[in-house]
Amino acid sequence: VPGVSKAAEAGRTILEAARRSRAWDRLADLCDRVGPRLAGSRGYAAAVEWAIAEMTADGLSNVRREPVRVVPWERGAESLIVVEPNGPRPIPVTALGRSVATPAEGITARMVVVPDFAALEKLGEGARGKIVVFNFTMRLAADGGGGYGEAVRYRAGGAIAAAKHGAVAALVRSVTTQRGRSVHTGSMSYEDGVPKIPAAAITIEDSEMLARLQEKSVPVTLFLRLGGRMLPEVLEANVIGELRGRESPDEIVVVGGHLDSWDLACGAHDDGAGVVLSLEAVRLIKQIGLVPRRTIRVVLYANEECGLDGGTAYAESQRATIERHVAALESDSGGFRPTGFGFQGAPAAADRLEALLAAFDGLGPLTLRRGWSGPDIGPLAKLGVPGVGLRNDGTRYFDFHHSPMDTPDKVDRRELDDAVAAYAWMAWLLAEMPEPLARAVPAP
Amino acid sequence: VPGVSKAAEAGRTILEAARRSRAWDRLADLCDRVGPRLAGSRGYAAAVEWAIAEMTADGLSNVRREPVRVVPWERGAESLIVVEPNGPRPIPVTALGRSVATPAEGITARMVVVPDFAALEKLGEGARGKIVVFNFTMRLAADGGGGYGEAVRYRAGGAIAAAKHGAVAALVRSVTTQRGRSVHTGSMSYEDGVPKIPAAAITIEDSEMLARLQEKSVPVTLFLRLGGRMLPEVLEANVIGELRGRESPDEIVVVGGHLDSWDLACGAHDDGAGVVLSLEAVRLIKQIGLVPRRTIRVVLYANEECGLDGGTAYAESQRATIERHVAALESDSGGFRPTGFGFQGAPAAADRLEALLAAFDGLGPLTLRRGWSGPDIGPLAKLGVPGVGLRNDGTRYFDFHHSPMDTPDKVDRRELDDAVAAYAWMAWLLAEMPEPLARAVPAP
Repeated sequence: VPGVSKAAEAGRTILEAARRSRAWDRLADLCDRVGPRLAGSRGYAAAVEWAIAEMTADGLSNVRREPVRVVPWERGAESLIVVEPNGPRPIPVTALGRSVATPAEGITARMVVVPDFAALEKLGEGARGKIVVFNFTMRLAADGGGGYGEAVRYRAGGAIAAAKHGAVAALVRSVTTQRGRSVHTGSMSYEDGVPKIPAAAITIEDSEMLARLQEKSVPVTLFLRLGGRMLPEVLEANVIGELRGRESPDEIVVVGGHLDSWDLACGAHDDGAGVVLSLEAVRLIKQIGLVPRRTIRVVLYANEECGLDGGTAYAESQRATIERHVAALESDSGGFRPTGFGFQGAPAAADRLEALLAAFDGLGPLTLRRGWSGPDIGPLAKLGVPGVGLRNDGTRYFDFHHSPMDTPDKVDRRELDDAVAAYAWMAWLLAEMPEPLARAVPAP
Repeated sequence: VPGVSKAAEAGRTILEAARRSRAWDRLADLCDRVGPRLAGSRGYAAAVEWAIAEMTADGLSNVRREPVRVVPWERGAESLIVVEPNGPRPIPVTALGRSVATPAEGITARMVVVPDFAALEKLGEGARGKIVVFNFTMRLAADGGGGYGEAVRYRAGGAIAAAKHGAVAALVRSVTTQRGRSVHTGSMSYEDGVPKIPAAAITIEDSEMLARLQEKSVPVTLFLRLGGRMLPEVLEANVIGELRGRESPDEIVVVGGHLDSWDLACGAHDDGAGVVLSLEAVRLIKQIGLVPRRTIRVVLYANEECGLDGGTAYAESQRATIERHVAALESDSGGFRPTGFGFQGAPAAADRLEALLAAFDGLGPLTLRRGWSGPDIGPLAKLGVPGVGLRNDGTRYFDFHHSPMDTPDKVDRRELDDAVAAYAWMAWLLAEMPEPLARAVPAP
């Protein structure tokens, strides 16, 4: 395969430089100085300022913000209390993103626990007037995949299913396998024609406690008060900066992650890691003088978590110049040890990437998973831009994901440096390869 | 050693029965139906009812409550906010037991982080008017011991040391090595003549964040509001029941744990485990017909956590009959795999127990640690009663200790059954041995 030996050589050079990366320190800086940064919040505004300052200090060209329309969701006061037996006993709760509020006086109702959607169906009228608790047990699945995909259906669609059965609210066991008595939030949705009922996450521990009480036929009454709400539309921003290509500066490789985070922590893995990987990749490539053929454009996206608005807005804004986008790279799977890449696009392009990955063994085998890239570059991939997503060891990703635990101490400095190396190498490859990757036919 | 082979045989019989113990189910029942049970709270009253009902169902004799004077501490609303940089950013906080409240409008002040008491001394006037953050890093130490002992000094005495340097409040890194973004409470104290300043625990993660910001010379202003207070004295109760001895019913072996827990969780390891071990030990001994020579008296103590009142009151009430107490056994080190016992008393008695322990290998080697027994039986040991404390593998005990994570899923069913076996065997030994253990000379 042409270019393979040059690619492997660049990989070794980048890996050596990445051993002295500033990725972890920059991640801690974002987390400590800025903190949580949900779109629409003061935190997100501070993150935009932070990113502009960092890109400027790194010497990127054309540093700018591009407007993104966002309808933000804001968390309110929230409270869940076991009224009986032996109440009032407060237990941890957190509203899911986009949930409506309860009435100001809260909801007091009997609960019913179900292990899955099928059990809810079997209940028939048994959920009417009740608070439904979805106690679905997530499987621990390495590399993200299966365990999360199965379990997140209850977070995303639990309120719809419960409302169809006449429930007054939905509580969802947090989508995690980590027993930290911690709530894990995330976005949810409603369906036209189905009543909008409030939805919140509870801890594994409390979900199991409620299930045990039901098992023993102990009547359980809960009090739930949630105050979240949608705010009026505001203009947020994607933050963009460039490393100009040496030969074909009009051809663009987009490299990025999302700048927003959930509000319960500072989003170290999700997606502070993607932000600093993108910044560090470009800084290292520049520093070691590997300035590639094409322009690498860093795009830090707004509001991935509760609307995917930044990725959508970027793709929309580039419709006229979409043919000049030769590839898009994203990191949104945490700051763990890199395991490879995902690819969304033409099979011939995937074959070519796979051959290049096989040539470089400095980080252990890096494999290609077809059919997946990343959330923010999904809209670009739909327009035919080859989409590449960094994959990381996901075994422990959902321990921290969307929870108060997603702090920088959970990111290992050395693993993050390895991720910088894999990511910077891929960014360089995509921007340097003499012939760009074959494009897929755009989705209709 | 006389009695050794009989002791080993009883050990095997008890171990076999303990494999079918109800310990875990009873623990979950206490945790689920009653929940948190800080002395002075509705939860403690429910725990007393629960314990009376359980002892009665187990067929114990002379089931009763004995009054204990308690001056309870009650948690109030609590809030800690990073005002700058980029505030307001709320971070988790929990008041330490017995802490005074802040003024109702809260305290807003600069912070200073110190790694230990020595660094505070070096600050001189540098802590005056500030909120002192004690960022002492606990070592992970198996079997409880060193790691906790070193670190808990900051929780117990941090407010005194900080106040002596003119600080307005003390924040203490939670006494744990578990990075669950969780606060771990516990009791603290004040010193006569030193101003009483509010004291609270913060998470490891936030303590490290504040230390990093200080390291970078970023000014940090915090807002702290705590509403805890001491309540007027109330009468709580120890709960007591007996298995009458077959030959010398007036000779008593006390077996127990503390019925109260902190308020952040249901106290599964601390000390729900000790409660159910005490109940199950007696139930199993009775069930398999090993009814011993002397009376085994189960004592479930009130308010260990914030005053040690139950243990003190029990010893006081027994001063006249103290000679009839041949031994006291306690479990207050969680529900983990048993590793042996502690012993507080005469060296000759320790030698004798050590020989008996060596004879039984059904649970792996059970060793004796001299000079320690348990908090609630400490007052009895001071009066010369031989004190024996169950020891458990403590490697992960402080992951959960005094935190919202201390829930029954953290207790392994099989490990708890092994603890039941070790504990029941020791209770039986102490109540059965022909000659009681030699007594120590009472402390003056």
